[in-house]
Amino acid sequence: MPNAQCPMPNAHCPNFMSAEIICVGTELLLGDILNGNAQYLAKELAFLGIPHYYQTVVGDNLDRLQKAIAIASSRAQILIFTGGLGPTPDDLTCEAIATYFNSPLIERADIIEDITKKFAVRNRVMTPSNRKQALIPQGADILPNISGTAPGIIWQPVNQSQKNLIILTFPGVPSEMHRMWQETAVPFLKSQGWGENIIHSRMLKFWGVGESALAEKVSSFLNVPNPTVAPYASKGEVKLRVAAKAVSESAAEELIVPVEQQIKDIAGLDYYGADDDTLASVVGGLLRSAGETVSVAESCTGGYLGQMLTENSGSSDYFWGGVISYDNSAKVGMLGVNSEDLEKYGAVSGVVAEQMAVGVKKRLGTTWGISITGVAGPTGGSETKPVGLVYIGLAAPNGEVQSFENQFGVARGRSLIRHLSACTALDILRRRLIKK
Amino acid sequence: MPNAQCPMPNAHCPNFMSAEIICVGTELLLGDILNGNAQYLAKELAFLGIPHYYQTVVGDNLDRLQKAIAIASSRAQILIFTGGLGPTPDDLTCEAIATYFNSPLIERADIIEDITKKFAVRNRVMTPSNRKQALIPQGADILPNISGTAPGIIWQPVNQSQKNLIILTFPGVPSEMHRMWQETAVPFLKSQGWGENIIHSRMLKFWGVGESALAEKVSSFLNVPNPTVAPYASKGEVKLRVAAKAVSESAAEELIVPVEQQIKDIAGLDYYGADDDTLASVVGGLLRSAGETVSVAESCTGGYLGQMLTENSGSSDYFWGGVISYDNSAKVGMLGVNSEDLEKYGAVSGVVAEQMAVGVKKRLGTTWGISITGVAGPTGGSETKPVGLVYIGLAAPNGEVQSFENQFGVARGRSLIRHLSACTALDILRRRLIKK
Repeated sequence: MPNAQCPMPNAHCPNFMSAEIICVGTELLLGDILNGNAQYLAKELAFLGIPHYYQTVVGDNLDRLQKAIAIASSRAQILIFTGGLGPTPDDLTCEAIATYFNSPLIERADIIEDITKKFAVRNRVMTPSNRKQALIPQGADILPNISGTAPGIIWQPVNQSQKNLIILTFPGVPSEMHRMWQETAVPFLKSQGWGENIIHSRMLKFWGVGESALAEKVSSFLNVPNPTVAPYASKGEVKLRVAAKAVSESAAEELIVPVEQQIKDIAGLDYYGADDDTLASVVGGLLRSAGETVSVAESCTGGYLGQMLTENSGSSDYFWGGVISYDNSAKVGMLGVNSEDLEKYGAVSGVVAEQMAVGVKKRLGTTWGISITGVAGPTGGSETKPVGLVYIGLAAPNGEVQSFENQFGVARGRSLIRHLSACTALDILRRRLIKK
Repeated sequence: MPNAQCPMPNAHCPNFMSAEIICVGTELLLGDILNGNAQYLAKELAFLGIPHYYQTVVGDNLDRLQKAIAIASSRAQILIFTGGLGPTPDDLTCEAIATYFNSPLIERADIIEDITKKFAVRNRVMTPSNRKQALIPQGADILPNISGTAPGIIWQPVNQSQKNLIILTFPGVPSEMHRMWQETAVPFLKSQGWGENIIHSRMLKFWGVGESALAEKVSSFLNVPNPTVAPYASKGEVKLRVAAKAVSESAAEELIVPVEQQIKDIAGLDYYGADDDTLASVVGGLLRSAGETVSVAESCTGGYLGQMLTENSGSSDYFWGGVISYDNSAKVGMLGVNSEDLEKYGAVSGVVAEQMAVGVKKRLGTTWGISITGVAGPTGGSETKPVGLVYIGLAAPNGEVQSFENQFGVARGRSLIRHLSACTALDILRRRLIKK
């Protein structure tokens, strides 16, 4: 990140400062829960433009917790803790922080009063163990918790070599943490001069191109500091995250838009959408604006394509339904596939895929018909029809019919082969709707 | 873990050794993805009885990655990396490890050959940037990746002060990582003497009962030390994890079985299966052993139920197909729903659900027919037919027809309402197949 223009000495220059997230809890080390708190805080820090280079997970252990504090406070200026604020003996976050910074823990009467009131509302009496939640380091401010009993703290320890260290603690319960973050922590951090620069980003999405191939095409953008462009890939989809740092969302947009446009020009039809777009939502939008409709005939995907097409509310505008022709009798009886062709070419063939697409289009009375027939495995493959071989059929409004052969490969497994089949079918229709 | 009986000096005693997880990826620091890999590995380490005290997340940065390696290798004896093995310039895990341990990176011809073959299967050519994935530290073994291009490594660096350090690397793609972990890493770690005291567990699964209600029924098991019983809940399903610590899987089984049996007796039909069982696989098993078949008629779920029923290989034995009757015309034309009833009662009604189930059973010639029609929202609700109202129809082999009204509630959102609808349909069929 550039800092040439910063007039402040390095230790005080916000460009050199960063935050760290320390999640406390043995349940995280046992894999009992997903660390959604780290993701939430990471997103929030990114949005505020606060650099964040490390996250640590540590168990409910006083010694190891202090070691984690030592490491984090040597690297960062804002330490954000989640978890370990509860009333039981294994909740040790406050004690570890106070011990590490040589501060006594003080029982705060205002916290005791607040907890007592909260118990009264639920017709319960505060237990002795809850008194523990009223102990905070001397000089720390309370980070109020409206929805739970455990308050957090905002603390700038004084007796330490590193100046300007800020400590924030939150309970591990996500809903309580989110509210405390938004209502108190964000205004506090802004009042300290953080978050004046935000990071705003757009996720560009691609289908039909590999991660490395796309990265090579757009390589000139991959080493630029602002906006940054970073590739991601998962389950056949490739994404490019274009992230700009600027004083406002609109200023960030001004940096993103020209890069986005150049990437779209390079990627051509492999680019399909951004952010919340899915292949199904993009296909739906294209059908809706053309006033056209689609129906599906699915064999190996068993309804997956229909499910995807109906994920968005309002899909009844363009999706009328389909036939799950898992058994061959359904291909003949429901879709009118020719039983001689079924015998001659096999259920997994371009000929049958085309007849399925034509059949469902006719039966449902839609403008487009699309079909999938293949070997999802792990059983059912043969030398000529291996697992991963999938045919997609497309029947167009003008009566044209096509089939597309895909070799997804046995190694990818049943679940991914089915996913790739449904996505590829959507992608074929998408490209055809655009080119039309 | 107790270590009084260990005859080895502390540094070599397995009881004092631990593993650390280092997840590499700027996308984790930006909050773009949830760190499911850390949870997976944490669970696996717990299962193997390998202590694990810290997790670190670090971005795609050579310097910071090396600093994280320095800290982790001073604390633990097994370092497990995920992410940063891809073909792009920001994939730096191997380079950082090799640099930190002063080892050259060697291009392995066998990896190049393997990647080339994988591209060929998909009718693509390996790009020059993929060559990077063939670079591994001198002396490291390959941790094969069957389903993706990036292999991992198993390495015990020699030129280091700390003896017996084991480094394992995995790609960030969860499905690839899981397979590599199970097929290669676990056998390797066991061969090194890890995992002698194992934690073995069984996940019991329930449908149709709430988490707190079930927890109260089985409360006497929740505070027992071995086996432990812990409740989990997600998306309508409740699970109880019964985990036993013992010297072997069979010794653990002896502890688990009686507890499992008592819990099953308490839960009755709300218990549906264990571990890899799904509602769909259990229904499939019941149908297969009865020699019966099912077809589906789906409206608001758009194919979700069919997709679930075909998730398991071999489902063609009992699932013959279905009709996605998203549009009303398909309900009449394809399923024979009476258009006057459709007008009178509405598409979302018990009458129409029953006719859909009967229609699809007849059209497909199966022994059972099951249907779903409802308001998945967020739009389309009314005062009498609110979002979340879903009817499930069931047509039985003996000609009996029933419908079931469900109020899933608008607050749960389209995606969860669809999921609950499909699962509830499976659960209704499951209970009926058992009672028959």
